[in-house]
Order: sequence, then C-alpha cells, then structure tokens
Amino acid sequence: MAAAALSLDNPIFRMYMGYAFLVIIKTIAMSFATVFFRITLKVFLNQEDVASFDPNKTNKGPQVHPTIERIRRCHQNDLENVIPFVLMGLLYVASGPTTFAASLHFRIFTASRFLHTYVYIFSIPQPTRVLVFHVGVFTTLSMAYTVFSQVAF
Amino acid sequence: MAAAALSLDNPIFRMYMGYAFLVIIKTIAMSFATVFFRITLKVFLNQEDVASFDPNKTNKGPQVHPTIERIRRCHQNDLENVIPFVLMGLLYVASGPTTFAASLHFRIFTASRFLHTYVYIFSIPQPTRVLVFHVGVFTTLSMAYTVFSQVAF
Amino acid sequence: MAAAALSLDNPIFRMYMGYAFLVIIKTIAMSFATVFFRITLKVFLNQEDVASFDPNKTNKGPQVHPTIERIRRCHQNDLENVIPFVLMGLLYVASGPTTFAASLHFRIFTASRFLHTYVYIFSIPQPTRVLVFHVGVFTTLSMAYTVFSQVAF
Repeated sequence: MAAAALSLDNPIFRMYMGYAFLVIIKTIAMSFATVFFRITLKVFLNQEDVASFDPNKTNKGPQVHPTIERIRRCHQNDLENVIPFVLMGLLYVASGPTTFAASLHFRIFTASRFLHTYVYIFSIPQPTRVLVFHVGVFTTLSMAYTVFSQVAF
Repeated sequence: MAAAALSLDNPIFRMYMGYAFLVIIKTIAMSFATVFFRITLKVFLNQEDVASFDPNKTNKGPQVHPTIERIRRCHQNDLENVIPFVLMGLLYVASGPTTFAASLHFRIFTASRFLHTYVYIFSIPQPTRVLVFHVGVFTTLSMAYTVFSQVAF
Repeated sequence: MAAAALSLDNPIFRMYMGYAFLVIIKTIAMSFATVFFRITLKVFLNQEDVASFDPNKTNKGPQVHPTIERIRRCHQNDLENVIPFVLMGLLYVASGPTTFAASLHFRIFTASRFLHTYVYIFSIPQPTRVLVFHVGVFTTLSMAYTVFSQVAF
C-alpha cells in the first residue's frame, strides 16, 4: 500500500492531484491578471516595456498602481501559502491519511484560498481576510501534524 | 528498492519528511510573525486593514516599518531557498543516496536555515548571514549534484 | 507501471529530474547574482550589511539600484513560474504521459525560462519577454490539462 502511495493506484493521490491542480492554476492566474492590468493601465517597471506598450507616454504618473499592487500582494500571499500546501500535501499523502481526513483538508484549504483571493481583490472589510487566511494556514499545519507522526529523524 | 523510494518503506524518505516538515513550518511561521507585528505596530498595506485594525488612525506615519520589512525579507529568503531545497530534496531521495549522506545534507541545510533566521531577525553583524546563507545554498547544490548523476535527458 | 511512476525505474521521471534540476539551478543562480551585485555595487537593505561591506559609506546614494532590482524581478518571476512547473511536472509524470509529450513539454519550458532570463537581464525590446513568458506559462497549463484528466475529486 505504502509503496504505491504516490501513484494513480492511490485514490487519495488522485484527489490530491485535483486540489493541487486547482490551487496551482489559481496562483498562475494571478500572473495573467498582472500582465493584463499592466498593459491596459500602462503601468510598467521596465524601460523596454514602456517603449513598446506605451510609446507615446500616455501614463505620465508614477509606475505604481493600487490595483496592480493589490494583485501582486495577493499573488505573493499565494506563493507563501499554496506552495507550502502542495509540498506538505505530497508528504501528507505519502504518510497514509484516511480518505475522509484527506478530502476534508484538501477541500477546506482550496475553498479558503479561492475565498481569500475574492476577499483580497474586492477589498472586503476585515477581519474577513485575516480569518480566511488563517483557515488555510491551520489546514496546512493540521496536515503537517499527521506528517510529523510518520517521520524518523 | 527504487520503486518504493518515495514511500514510508524507505527510511531516507521518512527522514526527508522530518526535515522538510521543519523547514516548511519555519517558513510558515514568518507569516504569523508578519501578521502579529502588522497588527501590534498598526502598519498596513490595505485600506480595509487600517479601517478595521486602526480605526482611530493611531499610526500617522508611513505604512512601512523596519521590523516588518526585515521579517518580510527573511520570509522571501526562505521562499527562495527552502522551496528549492524541498523540491531538490525529493528528487535527491528518489535518486537513491546513502543514509549517511542524506542525513548530513538534511541536517546541515535545516540548521543553516534556522540559524539564518536568527541571524537575520536579530541583526547579527556580517559576514555571518552571508556565510550561513551560502552553507544552505551549497547544501542544496550538493544534493543537486547527486540528482544530476541519475538523470537522462 | 503506475506504481513506480515516481522512481528511477521510470525513464520519464529521470527526464523530469533532469529538467527540474536545470530550472531549479537557474533559479538559485539568481541569488548568487543578487549577492554579487549587492557587494560589488555596495547597495544594501540592512544596516549590518552596510557596516561590514561598505564601512566607509562609499555609496552615498539610495540603497536601490536598477541592475539589482532587475535581477530581483527576474528572480521573483522564476519563483512564480519555475516552482509551479516543478510541482505540476511531478503530478504530470505521475499521470502517465507519453515519453514524446513529456520530453516536448520539459524542453520547451526549460528553453523558455533560460531565454526569459536572458531577455530580461539584457533588456531585449518587447514584446519578446511577454511572448517567452507566455510560452512557459502555457506549457505548464498544457501539462495541467493532462494532470486534470487523471484526477478524482
């Protein structure tokens, strides 16, 4: 059983693949959002970008825009939370959780991250974002607890 | 033997799980530190955070604080080093190292990252941080060397 | 076959190891570039760095330098793209692609990231960078499509 933990033979691994897929795609989507708003709002960080995408210097102001900075912070928050989840999740699947527990962890984390992005992008009043953020973090820590029960230093 | 490399049947994989657990938890801890200091020092990047956590605008100064920026840089350094270690470490375990070599690599890297955080947060004089940083990087590169011996392009 | 997907017995996993090795090493190299230019240009973000590496305060200007900021942005772009590729690539290998498809995906992604770094660092005129960037992103999304065909929520 353990030998094939990280393979398609393990239904929990297939489930992990699904949720890891969703949160990685969501993280990548932030890149598209950044590129879209940089080009439409004409706000760039490199001279060669201004030269090609805003040759007439339509944007005379500073090359910082609140919307883009907000997307960038949301993207960074994904990197700080989604990547640890995907890595810890792989170890979690290898550590042999029950299907019920694994399903619960993956669903709660994934929901918390999609909700976090919605709450961040649309500036929903606090403490919503801080609560949703912590639901995600504690889900990863709960998986880490199971992983820890199987380690050998 | 190689077939079960990434499973609980492999004692080196269990060891990897333990050290990956430690460094991922340490990275996540930086998020908690950032949230804690943002709320206690009342230094925020979003209007909705100020509205809820500092309604009387106690903090009249800029929304940048040296302590928070230091934690943020330390967190970023973790993302740039811990994530590559965990990923390269997985490939390293799959490449079939000896128990002794694996144990040595995992211990040195983990110690270097905990030390790096201590040195960074408490502003220990240089060149301590640059040395501790490079110990971690070269440990990852040494694992990469073993991985490279097993690849097939 | 599937049971040993993530092991040296699977030639596609060995190939994945090779390309993951290349792009992770490339990402780590950006750290070395940052350290090198910070010390030679004497541009630092921490007081203890200035105290040890520029005791005579040779650099009287701001502690921001266009070259270092460019390397830093390129490094951040790697974190946002290379890490998702390595994670999605692992799931992709587990999902059982053909050798031809896997080889194609890994080669195109790896080439796109090395080219992206070259284009970014040497400020090659746009839209080169945005095109090379999207080749990498769509390669990861194409692997994600194969992964999705094997998941079970």
